[in-house]
Amino acid sequence: MIPRIALDAMSGDHGPSIVVHAAIKVLSEMDDLHLILVGDEVVLKSVLGHHSAKVKERLSIRHAGQRVEMDESPSRALRNKKDSSMRVAINLVKEGLADACVSAGNTGALMATARYVLKTLPGIDRPAIITGLPNMQETCTHVLDLGANIDTTSEHLFQFAAMGTVLTQAVDNLPNPRIGLLNIGQEEIKGNECVKKAAKLLASSSSINYIGFVEGDDIFKGTVDVVVCDGFVGNVSLKTTEGVAKMISHYVKQSFNKNLWTRFVALISLPILKNLRHKIDPRRHNGASLLGLRGIVIKSHGSADMLSFTYAIKEAIIEVQKNVPEQISHILDTLLSEKGRVE
Amino acid sequence: MIPRIALDAMSGDHGPSIVVHAAIKVLSEMDDLHLILVGDEVVLKSVLGHHSAKVKERLSIRHAGQRVEMDESPSRALRNKKDSSMRVAINLVKEGLADACVSAGNTGALMATARYVLKTLPGIDRPAIITGLPNMQETCTHVLDLGANIDTTSEHLFQFAAMGTVLTQAVDNLPNPRIGLLNIGQEEIKGNECVKKAAKLLASSSSINYIGFVEGDDIFKGTVDVVVCDGFVGNVSLKTTEGVAKMISHYVKQSFNKNLWTRFVALISLPILKNLRHKIDPRRHNGASLLGLRGIVIKSHGSADMLSFTYAIKEAIIEVQKNVPEQISHILDTLLSEKGRVE
Repeated sequence: MIPRIALDAMSGDHGPSIVVHAAIKVLSEMDDLHLILVGDEVVLKSVLGHHSAKVKERLSIRHAGQRVEMDESPSRALRNKKDSSMRVAINLVKEGLADACVSAGNTGALMATARYVLKTLPGIDRPAIITGLPNMQETCTHVLDLGANIDTTSEHLFQFAAMGTVLTQAVDNLPNPRIGLLNIGQEEIKGNECVKKAAKLLASSSSINYIGFVEGDDIFKGTVDVVVCDGFVGNVSLKTTEGVAKMISHYVKQSFNKNLWTRFVALISLPILKNLRHKIDPRRHNGASLLGLRGIVIKSHGSADMLSFTYAIKEAIIEVQKNVPEQISHILDTLLSEKGRVE
Repeated sequence: MIPRIALDAMSGDHGPSIVVHAAIKVLSEMDDLHLILVGDEVVLKSVLGHHSAKVKERLSIRHAGQRVEMDESPSRALRNKKDSSMRVAINLVKEGLADACVSAGNTGALMATARYVLKTLPGIDRPAIITGLPNMQETCTHVLDLGANIDTTSEHLFQFAAMGTVLTQAVDNLPNPRIGLLNIGQEEIKGNECVKKAAKLLASSSSINYIGFVEGDDIFKGTVDVVVCDGFVGNVSLKTTEGVAKMISHYVKQSFNKNLWTRFVALISLPILKNLRHKIDPRRHNGASLLGLRGIVIKSHGSADMLSFTYAIKEAIIEVQKNVPEQISHILDTLLSEKGRVE
């Protein structure tokens, strides 16, 4: 089966100019793939230009007349943008004409639309957003939820742990991923009631490799594979990560740009700085997954560049190949029967 | 008035070897100061050694026979460690024999003991922990609460904003500090009920310069002076910051240590890397304040080195000079009368 991925081509800060070129790049690297650009047909054809000849059999265009704005409220987008590139791309997944969709659009609108159109899997109350962050072991630590849910119960955190287990098994090929619960201390007495109750649920499950509480700095140590938290905390932690990295990068540039001598040192340090940048390059981790839906939806960073967007497309391809939603359904069945035995 | 600061000399990962030398360093830099080392007299005298002669009039020792362990539960410390260096140091503040105390001990035990011995200020339901973090403007962004409170109401967040205002006015000499409320988006519709309600309370106050919602990355931009959040979120954000910084520092070392050539480049880059380190050196921001108490208590990082601990002592001195607890009482009176008018 050749994966068919629908791309919301009007999405993100840069729209078609990024999405179309990312599509061409991925198609040039992979043979067995079909991509569908969703958006304004005239614009898309013009951006495609002479490229269309070399990819014509593996790339199609699906017209959509509207666009969801980056600051549009989810409810407005849902009500008024039924012909938006985002909505049409998700519809293609629902109708079985695409196996996954990728959008760099407004997260709230994407989640609301995907949830409305695709519905959640049986046993999942709330979908969650998950992404990978770099760590010191040169692997990747997945964190969820990143903002889809702001008031979560211990049961939701438990479901997030199950979904995170499946995703890292599929994407990182880890047979038994280590699951940690984000807290403000590692001792059992620490944290609020919701986190304590979730810890008990996780500890009693034989299908989840729960390793206990972890703290914010553990995300970057590589000693845990999936960090579970509510969406408010996860979103603040993700944005904090971006903020620290940007500040350090700002001061690196400033320090190496101070005068002629520092600029010379920068020049000879360039290969080292590039190697360093590669190790923590956020672009390599672009592509957050909306988990818990009856379909695969990948969210690219709104400011993603071309390279970055290709990683989001590749994330979608892996999830299609590994059939992540079905795997999630499967682990949920196991967990529910486990719970039946416990109760 | 000469500030008298009690130092919990047995606290932190390194105990007296760090605290005593930090005390000597600060005394050598400042004339009008009296420091009280609290802890095992025999140990302290032996660490002081020949230094005692040059500081003898400005340094005293107060014996305490116990020590609170780093992993001891707050309730156990409170019940069983009545002669601990931590408790005795706080008692000195209560008895008016010291104007402030500094400890690198267990945060939970320090907060519980300080709260029990000193009590909170009138109008303050819960004390909070605040610290400064570096930002891109080469100033410092204060964040509170960092873990003293895990279930906060909008009223608590409002009190944190008031305390943060006073602290930054005193410590950073900002007449009208910008206060932001940490959220997962800047639009008014974002966030949980508690944050939304706190936003309304803050917007209606004329004594607080409330600038609206901020996100995790705003902490490092220098566009807000005080970031207000509940202790769970604040603690995760602080630990995330530490984690990202450590990971980047790990990869910088690794990249510059790869082979002979990279080590040579590191050598000539050294002044630049040092300058860089200085700008984001967490040691310069050591010294978190426990705000809302009837006394000044400063928490040093447990792993603080000597230089780092001197910053915590200096934070205590500034807060004594500016009389922070009295200033907090004052702004609370104003806020309460404001609220009286509104209601």
